[in-house]
Amino acid sequence: MNLRIPGPTPLSPEVMAAVGQQMINHRGPEFEALFGDVVTWLKLFFETEHDVHVFTASGTGGMEAAIVNTLSPGDRVLAVTVGVFGDRFADIAEAYGAEVTRLTFEMGQAADPDRVAAKLSEGAPYKAVLFTQNETSTGVTNDVLALCKAIQSAGDPAPLILVDAISGLGAIRLQADAWGCDVVITGSQKAWAAPPGLAMVSFGPRAQEASQQARMPRFYLDLGQAAKYAKRNQTPATPNVAALYGLHKSLEGMVAEGPEAVYARHAEIGAYCRQRALDMGLGLFADPDHYSNTVTAVTLGADRSAKQVLAALRERHDVICGSTKAPGVEMIRIGHMGYVSLEDIDGVYTALADVLAS
Amino acid sequence: MNLRIPGPTPLSPEVMAAVGQQMINHRGPEFEALFGDVVTWLKLFFETEHDVHVFTASGTGGMEAAIVNTLSPGDRVLAVTVGVFGDRFADIAEAYGAEVTRLTFEMGQAADPDRVAAKLSEGAPYKAVLFTQNETSTGVTNDVLALCKAIQSAGDPAPLILVDAISGLGAIRLQADAWGCDVVITGSQKAWAAPPGLAMVSFGPRAQEASQQARMPRFYLDLGQAAKYAKRNQTPATPNVAALYGLHKSLEGMVAEGPEAVYARHAEIGAYCRQRALDMGLGLFADPDHYSNTVTAVTLGADRSAKQVLAALRERHDVICGSTKAPGVEMIRIGHMGYVSLEDIDGVYTALADVLAS
Repeated sequence: MNLRIPGPTPLSPEVMAAVGQQMINHRGPEFEALFGDVVTWLKLFFETEHDVHVFTASGTGGMEAAIVNTLSPGDRVLAVTVGVFGDRFADIAEAYGAEVTRLTFEMGQAADPDRVAAKLSEGAPYKAVLFTQNETSTGVTNDVLALCKAIQSAGDPAPLILVDAISGLGAIRLQADAWGCDVVITGSQKAWAAPPGLAMVSFGPRAQEASQQARMPRFYLDLGQAAKYAKRNQTPATPNVAALYGLHKSLEGMVAEGPEAVYARHAEIGAYCRQRALDMGLGLFADPDHYSNTVTAVTLGADRSAKQVLAALRERHDVICGSTKAPGVEMIRIGHMGYVSLEDIDGVYTALADVLAS
Repeated sequence: MNLRIPGPTPLSPEVMAAVGQQMINHRGPEFEALFGDVVTWLKLFFETEHDVHVFTASGTGGMEAAIVNTLSPGDRVLAVTVGVFGDRFADIAEAYGAEVTRLTFEMGQAADPDRVAAKLSEGAPYKAVLFTQNETSTGVTNDVLALCKAIQSAGDPAPLILVDAISGLGAIRLQADAWGCDVVITGSQKAWAAPPGLAMVSFGPRAQEASQQARMPRFYLDLGQAAKYAKRNQTPATPNVAALYGLHKSLEGMVAEGPEAVYARHAEIGAYCRQRALDMGLGLFADPDHYSNTVTAVTLGADRSAKQVLAALRERHDVICGSTKAPGVEMIRIGHMGYVSLEDIDGVYTALADVLAS
């Protein structure tokens, strides 16, 4: 199987072997050593000196943790959305009683920092801004630094900056501390090339301060509890040990490769995937200035059915790409993050050429 | 390593091999078949014809899901607690704004149904009662049926019955539908002999009805969303695929063995573990009428340090038992659920005899 959805991503043989290991005591020294490594290594990719919490949840649980640990019901929140996952971030804040204003950009486009700054200047100050680093549904990567600067120019104190980097971090550089991202969220099944089931969330000093006043209810996702247990490299609840084995093994390789090489590799494979689509006469859905290096949305032309193409890729070639929806556009998504080679991408296009020819 | 904590429990070689498999598309037919099997098989152990939701969380996340999907802030809730995990259930309800009354029984004792009934008759009606099937911290199993009857006698409609069966279900029989347990919670890393990271929660018709009015905020743990996706054997957020591989393989074996044989095996190994302790002149912490068949709390005598004994077991024999605390009592816990043999228990006592002799 050539699994090319934007997560869960394939595991290397080494990671699979690690995942299938025997259980250990989650309150014992072997676990503490493993967990300590994972947190230390993650900080190299978050580029933060502050806490990174790792807990048992899907990425959506990580997004919820970012919100409930920093905000109170009634807080004014600006949700900047460029697709499905930006909408989800807004939905979570609303479910917990935040007063959410949505700033929605057309699918395929990135968020415009000037429009974000303009929106922030209207009405009472916002407590927080939510946005997505890499929108998985459209293959768009926002300019996180430019958005942070726009938000920081909005007032003093600036709104909290909560960034969903679930499908980007570990492949596309983000500097949490230097850029002023207060909370950054990612998930193990994306660029980290580990099994799903771990949310990883950085929590900077302004988020820490906000958490003292935040009144949204929380228990399972309470990062204050996580911080207490993290002092001895443990977690409050029983952790997702098998996924942690995999994440540990995968991070070991990523650290040995070096973050810059990891980012360069993703830039190369992203460009390669896009070029192959163009070479075949297919289109790219995303704004060319904001192509994602982890997932590409390829448009097929209005006369083709994405659903049928995806089924044929699977049935005839065992190539699994992702579906996605935009009004009047037939497209498929190709994931290229984590454990992926140029040959894997070649395999997708060879199969796609066959399917489209028939 | 002889891992004898009360979860994570050891994995069989077959389950380890399953856990270490390659990822698949969580929106594809292979996943849907796997997830459908898991839910179908779990219902045989929950003894329910209604929904069983499986989602990515520790058991604590399952407890939180039970509460936030059925209750509203201000609801009167009776929390019956016989130890650490009963206390946790109460803490979660309080964190979300329930008006919680605690009925606490002495550690080592079970909950007395008569006292529960008496408490329920005081003051305004309770919306829900929370209690634990098997208290992991003390090795006590409550009489769930007797507690359900006491609660059902309290009024019409009776309070909702939410049961934390995390460390009991799959080893100690519980009949969700026949006994009237509205929500029952368990976790993959206990009797199910799979990796941690999956909460499994049954949700009966009265819980379903209550969820329509329940106003506690929820998004990640919203079981209404889970029910929608369950119709096509999917989950709203990316699921814990590796743990599901393990749970599927383990359940396959448990179903082939048959639930009654599984319960009988746990009754046998529980009795064996207790007898070996008594044969060595050690004590048992739990009320003899309510011994747990999944975990035994063994008292060592006041002149011994449980901490030192646990360290010596680990360092000299690679036997990992659990710690637990009660005022003035030195004790250790031995887990015996899931993938465990009489020989594993012999190994614990052989090591313990050596440690205590020195």
